[in-house]
Amino acid sequence: MTDTEAAAWWGTAVSRIEPDHIELRGIPVADLIGDITFGAMIWLMVRGDRPTARQASLLEAALVAGVDHGPHAPSIAVARMAATCGVGLNNAMASAVNTLGDSHGGAGQQCVELLDDILRAAATAPLADAADQVIAAWRARGVRYLPGFGHRFHTRDPRRDPLLGLVDQAVADGTVTGHHLKAALAVETALNRGRSRPVPMNIDGATAVIFAELGFPAALARGLFVLSRSVGILAHAWEEMGQGRRNKGPIPPAIRPAYLG
Amino acid sequence: MTDTEAAAWWGTAVSRIEPDHIELRGIPVADLIGDITFGAMIWLMVRGDRPTARQASLLEAALVAGVDHGPHAPSIAVARMAATCGVGLNNAMASAVNTLGDSHGGAGQQCVELLDDILRAAATAPLADAADQVIAAWRARGVRYLPGFGHRFHTRDPRRDPLLGLVDQAVADGTVTGHHLKAALAVETALNRGRSRPVPMNIDGATAVIFAELGFPAALARGLFVLSRSVGILAHAWEEMGQGRRNKGPIPPAIRPAYLG
Amino acid sequence: MTDTEAAAWWGTAVSRIEPDHIELRGIPVADLIGDITFGAMIWLMVRGDRPTARQASLLEAALVAGVDHGPHAPSIAVARMAATCGVGLNNAMASAVNTLGDSHGGAGQQCVELLDDILRAAATAPLADAADQVIAAWRARGVRYLPGFGHRFHTRDPRRDPLLGLVDQAVADGTVTGHHLKAALAVETALNRGRSRPVPMNIDGATAVIFAELGFPAALARGLFVLSRSVGILAHAWEEMGQGRRNKGPIPPAIRPAYLG
Amino acid sequence: MTDTEAAAWWGTAVSRIEPDHIELRGIPVADLIGDITFGAMIWLMVRGDRPTARQASLLEAALVAGVDHGPHAPSIAVARMAATCGVGLNNAMASAVNTLGDSHGGAGQQCVELLDDILRAAATAPLADAADQVIAAWRARGVRYLPGFGHRFHTRDPRRDPLLGLVDQAVADGTVTGHHLKAALAVETALNRGRSRPVPMNIDGATAVIFAELGFPAALARGLFVLSRSVGILAHAWEEMGQGRRNKGPIPPAIRPAYLG
Repeated sequence: MTDTEAAAWWGTAVSRIEPDHIELRGIPVADLIGDITFGAMIWLMVRGDRPTARQASLLEAALVAGVDHGPHAPSIAVARMAATCGVGLNNAMASAVNTLGDSHGGAGQQCVELLDDILRAAATAPLADAADQVIAAWRARGVRYLPGFGHRFHTRDPRRDPLLGLVDQAVADGTVTGHHLKAALAVETALNRGRSRPVPMNIDGATAVIFAELGFPAALARGLFVLSRSVGILAHAWEEMGQGRRNKGPIPPAIRPAYLG
Repeated sequence: MTDTEAAAWWGTAVSRIEPDHIELRGIPVADLIGDITFGAMIWLMVRGDRPTARQASLLEAALVAGVDHGPHAPSIAVARMAATCGVGLNNAMASAVNTLGDSHGGAGQQCVELLDDILRAAATAPLADAADQVIAAWRARGVRYLPGFGHRFHTRDPRRDPLLGLVDQAVADGTVTGHHLKAALAVETALNRGRSRPVPMNIDGATAVIFAELGFPAALARGLFVLSRSVGILAHAWEEMGQGRRNKGPIPPAIRPAYLG
Repeated sequence: MTDTEAAAWWGTAVSRIEPDHIELRGIPVADLIGDITFGAMIWLMVRGDRPTARQASLLEAALVAGVDHGPHAPSIAVARMAATCGVGLNNAMASAVNTLGDSHGGAGQQCVELLDDILRAAATAPLADAADQVIAAWRARGVRYLPGFGHRFHTRDPRRDPLLGLVDQAVADGTVTGHHLKAALAVETALNRGRSRPVPMNIDGATAVIFAELGFPAALARGLFVLSRSVGILAHAWEEMGQGRRNKGPIPPAIRPAYLG
Repeated sequence: MTDTEAAAWWGTAVSRIEPDHIELRGIPVADLIGDITFGAMIWLMVRGDRPTARQASLLEAALVAGVDHGPHAPSIAVARMAATCGVGLNNAMASAVNTLGDSHGGAGQQCVELLDDILRAAATAPLADAADQVIAAWRARGVRYLPGFGHRFHTRDPRRDPLLGLVDQAVADGTVTGHHLKAALAVETALNRGRSRPVPMNIDGATAVIFAELGFPAALARGLFVLSRSVGILAHAWEEMGQGRRNKGPIPPAIRPAYLG
């Protein structure tokens, strides 16, 4: 065993750190500072290449849209409660980010997978039929709520239309192909057929369309959502710290949890 | 106890979530999507007002600069190891963010406090004397390494000059006052007096100058660094997942930890 | 909405907290302190009833066996690195516990599921055939390493024999039935058939046998392992804090990660 | 750089892991399994020596007493909410353990420090005077609530008397000296002088007395509390998983957080 092996163990193409020299994805850090937006930097770091200005703008719109959904979201409530417990701001944020699991932060990832399934099926069938087939297959696997569609709180998620409007523009100017958008709209159509109450795309669906149109693999949809939601997590943790509670519980002290024993 | 009290318990000015309506800092989300950059959105969410384009650019430069410092940084190593353990990407990111504590993520916050101390002292003394006094006071409290200055790896942090160059421009165009910049340069001068090996400002110092010049309170320097470093954490966790190791330890399996018993 | 609904939202049978009165699983805390071992308390809290002395001893043996496997385990390395970053001891422990995911902490849970599958199949087939069938089915699902069997480091895990010896005793004195033990031994036999290098049960397998014999559902095998490994995590984090490093990376600073770009 | 240096970087006296051989604190694991209780194992791993049976029992009583304080405790609420978000049980536990910071999990540690301060002062003054001095000094430093005394919910913490009763026994049989117990009682006396509503020792104070009497340094009081509370965290996370909610927020969906903007 030599240092070569230990060095190889930690080998990476993300960054190169030498004394007095830092390269990120092969670019000296001094060439990035002041030259690249934070949104474009996210793309560069995760994918290894620089986005065009239009690609970066579309990505940023998705990141902006997901920052917060208020204290009813477990991630936000956890951030606020943790912030009153005498831990660092980073620790409060970590406890919150940690809750963005399959149910709370994974719908975007799952929606990209759904759309990818549909596009594969659409290679040999009309898109509407492909959507029907894939939806039936997911239902057969026990999926009750299709990821990215419907909302327990909103009848129509107010983030859907502005996000899809931007995708329409991006299709029009050639930034993206629009294939995933069409697949997602086909799901909406299928879900709403014969229903009185529609089940429109939600934030996870609309951002999944954007991430997939931009070429991000499904698993990164969750990672990007974590970056987005971390902003709301920080804002809420910080506000809570200013309110001065100590060891804040989920309900006011005077309400006693029911005893079920 | 009524619902009013439970509602008050979770009261917030960050966001307002009503059926089919979302306001973030008082602005309907549809007015933000496609209109505001991700960097400006961070400012809006944390502070409650929209930054000017120049303010947002300066903030983004600081966020870009801190994204990564390679696998020697505990946060990055933790992210990569966690990513091989069969947890979600968000969990790997949370384990990593959680290590950005007082030593690893707190130097920016401490540096803002240092600069604030100096500016207060400078109300009644020349800046150079104020810097000397405050440095002496911090040393007397047992602080060995002044936060934001010197680096164990770089003799001159390659992120210092491009960041401070942007602050110079921002002073020139009136975006910021330059007070914190002068305080930080006074610390550099004091530290280098009579030394053969200089102790220049590092990434934590240079970004602390930017955050403080932009009016962020010290505690938020850590929060903003978390947002920045989360990008590198995601990039490394994702790369590691693609390398296919399972339960990756810190050193290759063939090297056995020394037994100190 | 009334307080009744908020109280119901947090209803629990685990504990009842009234002013000056605490019941844990229906027992006043004063009747437990000094009367119940920590191992028996774990059982009581998780399951709701008190174990016999023999049940508690067998559980404790499994908890003792899993506390540590040295710094090559990501959980231990993460705990030690986090402990040098200026966070609380609880935060260092949390970052570590967080890595005990499907690969690193989930093998016990998966092994209980494997043994349960075999016992179900054994209702209509001899046990050896049932084991063969279930192993084949798991292999067909893409499982390459059967959870609970084999070790990348030990040819024979030194914790296997003492743990199984205790299960043998517990079968002999009627504490447990031995059904899961037999299923696990059938897997070993099947795996070793025609092999020169045997694939014996490992710590996850042997503790899975104990948890399952004691009637814990599969998912709790992971929870119990977290309690066990938390002890080693604490011991290592604490030792590291005493060694005085600051922001410890995974390899000594002089070794540079290979650049793969 | 050689493998010797990488091996030294991860040197430890906690455990020795060789192929087919595991030693924990110098003892082959096979000699521990079935021979040592889980409580005694905690002592061994953290301190390096085996406790007597009486020492282990006293430690276990403290660990038993702190397992849970219901869903009003942020740690418990966080565990339950996280458990509904589609993360692993270990992740839910980690988010919860992570909140056991200076306010929520640090009172025991701070109380040991308080009692140590008093015992040092008592070297040159009567104990009652030493307690008065130290309390005054802590108050002068801005400490409003003395750690380990008083409770926002209980007028008299029901865990105080049974725990202190065990310490009395341990003093009587020579297991511990009783010095920290006396210091803690002196604080109670000082706090209650001239008050109509007494401020008795709470769970953090009573367990701090036990940990300190047994010779644990202050910082480990938090670590031991983490091990104890992890049991309640697991019990609540597991119960919540059985209740079937998805992305559980802190209050029922029908209650809307007040908008403070």
